[in-house]
Amino acid sequence: MRVSVLRGAGDLLVEERPDPAPGPHEVLVRVASVGVCGSDVHYFEHGRIGSYTVDSPLVLGHEPSGVVVDVGAAVTRLSVGQRVSLEPGVPDFSCAQCLAGRYNLCEGMRFFATPPYDGAFAEMVTSHELFAHPVPDSLSDDAAALLEPLSVGLWACRQGGVSAGSRVLVTGAGPVGLVAAQAALALGAAEVTVTDVNPHRLALARELGATGTVDVGSTRLAEAGVEPDVLLECSGHPVATVEAIRTVARAGRVVLVGMGGDELALPASRVQEYELTVTGTFRYAHTWPAAIALAASGRVQLDRLVTGHYGLDQVREALTVARTDPHAIKPVVRPGA
Amino acid sequence: MRVSVLRGAGDLLVEERPDPAPGPHEVLVRVASVGVCGSDVHYFEHGRIGSYTVDSPLVLGHEPSGVVVDVGAAVTRLSVGQRVSLEPGVPDFSCAQCLAGRYNLCEGMRFFATPPYDGAFAEMVTSHELFAHPVPDSLSDDAAALLEPLSVGLWACRQGGVSAGSRVLVTGAGPVGLVAAQAALALGAAEVTVTDVNPHRLALARELGATGTVDVGSTRLAEAGVEPDVLLECSGHPVATVEAIRTVARAGRVVLVGMGGDELALPASRVQEYELTVTGTFRYAHTWPAAIALAASGRVQLDRLVTGHYGLDQVREALTVARTDPHAIKPVVRPGA
Amino acid sequence: MRVSVLRGAGDLLVEERPDPAPGPHEVLVRVASVGVCGSDVHYFEHGRIGSYTVDSPLVLGHEPSGVVVDVGAAVTRLSVGQRVSLEPGVPDFSCAQCLAGRYNLCEGMRFFATPPYDGAFAEMVTSHELFAHPVPDSLSDDAAALLEPLSVGLWACRQGGVSAGSRVLVTGAGPVGLVAAQAALALGAAEVTVTDVNPHRLALARELGATGTVDVGSTRLAEAGVEPDVLLECSGHPVATVEAIRTVARAGRVVLVGMGGDELALPASRVQEYELTVTGTFRYAHTWPAAIALAASGRVQLDRLVTGHYGLDQVREALTVARTDPHAIKPVVRPGA
Amino acid sequence: MRVSVLRGAGDLLVEERPDPAPGPHEVLVRVASVGVCGSDVHYFEHGRIGSYTVDSPLVLGHEPSGVVVDVGAAVTRLSVGQRVSLEPGVPDFSCAQCLAGRYNLCEGMRFFATPPYDGAFAEMVTSHELFAHPVPDSLSDDAAALLEPLSVGLWACRQGGVSAGSRVLVTGAGPVGLVAAQAALALGAAEVTVTDVNPHRLALARELGATGTVDVGSTRLAEAGVEPDVLLECSGHPVATVEAIRTVARAGRVVLVGMGGDELALPASRVQEYELTVTGTFRYAHTWPAAIALAASGRVQLDRLVTGHYGLDQVREALTVARTDPHAIKPVVRPGA
Repeated sequence: MRVSVLRGAGDLLVEERPDPAPGPHEVLVRVASVGVCGSDVHYFEHGRIGSYTVDSPLVLGHEPSGVVVDVGAAVTRLSVGQRVSLEPGVPDFSCAQCLAGRYNLCEGMRFFATPPYDGAFAEMVTSHELFAHPVPDSLSDDAAALLEPLSVGLWACRQGGVSAGSRVLVTGAGPVGLVAAQAALALGAAEVTVTDVNPHRLALARELGATGTVDVGSTRLAEAGVEPDVLLECSGHPVATVEAIRTVARAGRVVLVGMGGDELALPASRVQEYELTVTGTFRYAHTWPAAIALAASGRVQLDRLVTGHYGLDQVREALTVARTDPHAIKPVVRPGA
Repeated sequence: MRVSVLRGAGDLLVEERPDPAPGPHEVLVRVASVGVCGSDVHYFEHGRIGSYTVDSPLVLGHEPSGVVVDVGAAVTRLSVGQRVSLEPGVPDFSCAQCLAGRYNLCEGMRFFATPPYDGAFAEMVTSHELFAHPVPDSLSDDAAALLEPLSVGLWACRQGGVSAGSRVLVTGAGPVGLVAAQAALALGAAEVTVTDVNPHRLALARELGATGTVDVGSTRLAEAGVEPDVLLECSGHPVATVEAIRTVARAGRVVLVGMGGDELALPASRVQEYELTVTGTFRYAHTWPAAIALAASGRVQLDRLVTGHYGLDQVREALTVARTDPHAIKPVVRPGA
Repeated sequence: MRVSVLRGAGDLLVEERPDPAPGPHEVLVRVASVGVCGSDVHYFEHGRIGSYTVDSPLVLGHEPSGVVVDVGAAVTRLSVGQRVSLEPGVPDFSCAQCLAGRYNLCEGMRFFATPPYDGAFAEMVTSHELFAHPVPDSLSDDAAALLEPLSVGLWACRQGGVSAGSRVLVTGAGPVGLVAAQAALALGAAEVTVTDVNPHRLALARELGATGTVDVGSTRLAEAGVEPDVLLECSGHPVATVEAIRTVARAGRVVLVGMGGDELALPASRVQEYELTVTGTFRYAHTWPAAIALAASGRVQLDRLVTGHYGLDQVREALTVARTDPHAIKPVVRPGA
Repeated sequence: MRVSVLRGAGDLLVEERPDPAPGPHEVLVRVASVGVCGSDVHYFEHGRIGSYTVDSPLVLGHEPSGVVVDVGAAVTRLSVGQRVSLEPGVPDFSCAQCLAGRYNLCEGMRFFATPPYDGAFAEMVTSHELFAHPVPDSLSDDAAALLEPLSVGLWACRQGGVSAGSRVLVTGAGPVGLVAAQAALALGAAEVTVTDVNPHRLALARELGATGTVDVGSTRLAEAGVEPDVLLECSGHPVATVEAIRTVARAGRVVLVGMGGDELALPASRVQEYELTVTGTFRYAHTWPAAIALAASGRVQLDRLVTGHYGLDQVREALTVARTDPHAIKPVVRPGA
């Protein structure tokens, strides 16, 4: 099979590798679509993310959909021919975090495209059958792939306690902000205000259902009249984060989704006086069934986020388009194209 | 003003009364629409519900919308001319339940159309300003009235922990079942199956978004293949309730919304083995903001439930149509018509 | 090794078996103490519990403590010589319930002394290393064994939401009721009232910290002036259960711990009007760390419950003493004695 | 009556005032004991706390106990002669926060010794009857006063989700840290480690039940081997706070109780990767019943914290002793002495 390999910062190449063989509880999947994530871009540009370093060749891509083409001996839930969306991380099932139901915090997690584990910019990948989720035909291959970022948005909503009637502020209208906003609406939020400095993205946010937008390039958030119960911080911008926290209502919740550096100048006395709760998200757990239902029923729109398709030979273009095209939202790699 | 008064079982009459005067924190509301509830029908037919007896003349109706026509001296949140939906119960604000945030369980609650408190089949009513909720113009008078049953459905979802991805079974497709099903979808439920013996109502459930229906007049629920996480029991039928409980998945939740008599033959060993949680709803609390947002945005459809309009002189017809017309869902009284 | 085997109702015998060999993730444990549970008695008397039938010889006993005498090749957490308390059920780690953190509801659970899995009235048993919990020397062998019933009590408290200031009613002062009462106090309950018809047990409840007791043989509970937030039902007596439910305060919680038959005449309208929550417990999950800490620090007293010791040749006596001696609380089998 | 009045930073004086008269729902209380809080000291030293300024004469003291000596016309729960502990803040009962059950976040709160409301360094004070809690004779006057700081500790535990088996780190062994540690143990914590730089306070922490202490003047916390589920930060020291946050286990909770300035350099990437939850406390709500029960039963020891008694004429000494005596923990003012 053909795979796209990152050998170091900026050093990408397509190579042939033997087809992988599924383990007893695994399925072999022919990859259809793979969303490109900011973390893929970061590995490509810097050769590392924090302490994770590309020391040996790494296949990027962790938002794959595809078709089951082979199953391991012990597989019972899936069969050849089923279309699936792959949850990219498989935990060890037996650590304290796994037993507590928080497999996303498993220290033994094997996660696509996170050194030393290869990802899905490849014609074939294997997956544990429990983490290969069948999808209905009403979901396109792209949408099945984008269940992964939708899971990020759903998990942010869950960590933020978004529920019926919530007033939600989403800072940052990139792919994650746009799915987080849609997820919030799909969970019954009364108000979902989205901020960004890119008018194109704000327009898209409104199309996708946001009840309000604020262009924070021209309007100070403090003067925008928002008082959210829940802040889903998806910009990763430290100053914007602090400004947003200061708008949150008493007993409100702040979820740090965007990656914004190691430290944040938390307004601690405000956290105390208002009894705010500040938390962060690390991947997600248990989100695929909800993501499938919301996307398949049209309550969340994923295809609308796709702004370009790329073959395995065009992964470099897929990883750099965000820098060059302000209209780019979510590039998708199609390894079989 | 004119009011419709119940003097005992089956004994209704329209009479003139002086216009009520709002207290300091109250508003005077000209009533536009009032939904007819099963409890109104029950008072009309039996002159009582449980220990609540119609010992003196009682005005029925507790699902009103209208327009503010006067405000008390201390009112700060509302002004004359605002369209409002009235939350029909006002608590004492200072008991243990109120302080705990559960004002629906306040022992000192004054609730429309519950002896000895008059209801809203009247040209005018007063309401505490905190319980008169402004509504946007996108909500019709009828929809503003039906925020009350929607609140019942939302509260059922909240008691049942309905959230993203929930598999929900709604037993009974009367007005409450139909709003509960819509509420569950609006909170992100993955599957919402509705049961009834009335094919017309099941068809309506599907139109309103139910992902499945079961006609339990012809199909045994145990053989219908449902395994819900949450059961919203809206039929009040004891046998159906027990059958439905037996379909609920491990760690599932059962919410008794329908009134089905004093006792239920609870399958206790199943509750234990599956660690089911069984609870009931008593009215609702804090639901109006969510109800307004969901109805105003079209995520929940309320006008679709209205099957007839009646003037104050036709309250008897409004209270009896459910017995005679299988297509009747929700009659609405318009006191000013 | 020697084991006590139940071949059918009332048919017990001691036999020799080969020592078991630990699997890769298992430890071999020389059994020190094993508490006798009501379920052991029930299997002995009836040869079955519900659908679980003693079709082939079964070793009873599921509350064991002991010493590690051998470890499997992959064991990393334990070593030979460590004193341990064994959690008697090991789940499959990969079903939906396990992934959700609710391993007690795992359908693939292998549980000591539940057909077809043998229990611990034996000189040796094996256990998955994750479910063999090291205990400090301050805990006696008996107390280490009785961490199992304490776990039942802690799980009941957790299901009931017992926390600081809770007013708790414990119906039934058998071993489970007595540990549930102690657990509630150890979690900060303000009031813990215990009921029974056995004055000896009520006296013991008071010694162990209960703030009140009611002899329901002579006093009607409805007249005892209790209004609990949480009912921990440990009697399994259907009439007593219903009477107790009727004392619970608004928004209160009812936990069905005692086994009282398949059906319960639930006061459904009370559940609704008071928004009570009724749930049941099935074993426990994640309780051992808390149980060890509470027992080791003296906040819960377990040795005080032990009313007799029995060797493997005396298991019949251990299983029948509860019928003959009203002072018997918790017999303990010591296979090595 | 005599009161101690603060007229500005460092400017204290005792003056005569007319006895206050209770309103309809109020009781008049002869003050027995009043704990001295760090906020009293801060007002005395600086004449302000944040935006709260002593612009006109202010009576300090907000931790009072006493005896009811008169009751308002509408009082039903209390009678003359009852010993009470006063909850120092009375909310408006009708704002959104009050209705949600979070009266501590009420914007209309009237709180003792917070401008412009006078406190309890006075022979008499009035209180709303709902916030004057009867105490049993087993509680001393001092302990009844110190239910207020105990409430701070209980609320911290609640915000931190302390429950059975929690591993808790308490940073700072001042009065609040010492009650927080005791509260955590009383709620079932398995481990409670306390840090400080004052060996005397650490010794007291151990006497009161802490399972471990770390003298962070001589040992780096990172090397102390603690990995708490819950951090109750009671030092208000920004550097110590960040060091402590870095020890918290995955999915752990951080509660900022100590006042440590407006900003905190939050380790945001750690919060994300570990999905930590960071929150703060603002006073407390619904804590008195639990506090009374825990203190009255001896599960929490309050008298042990009292390190000196002062008459109204000695309030200056009570407010300055903490600066001069490293053994001082909690001075108590006795206005009638």
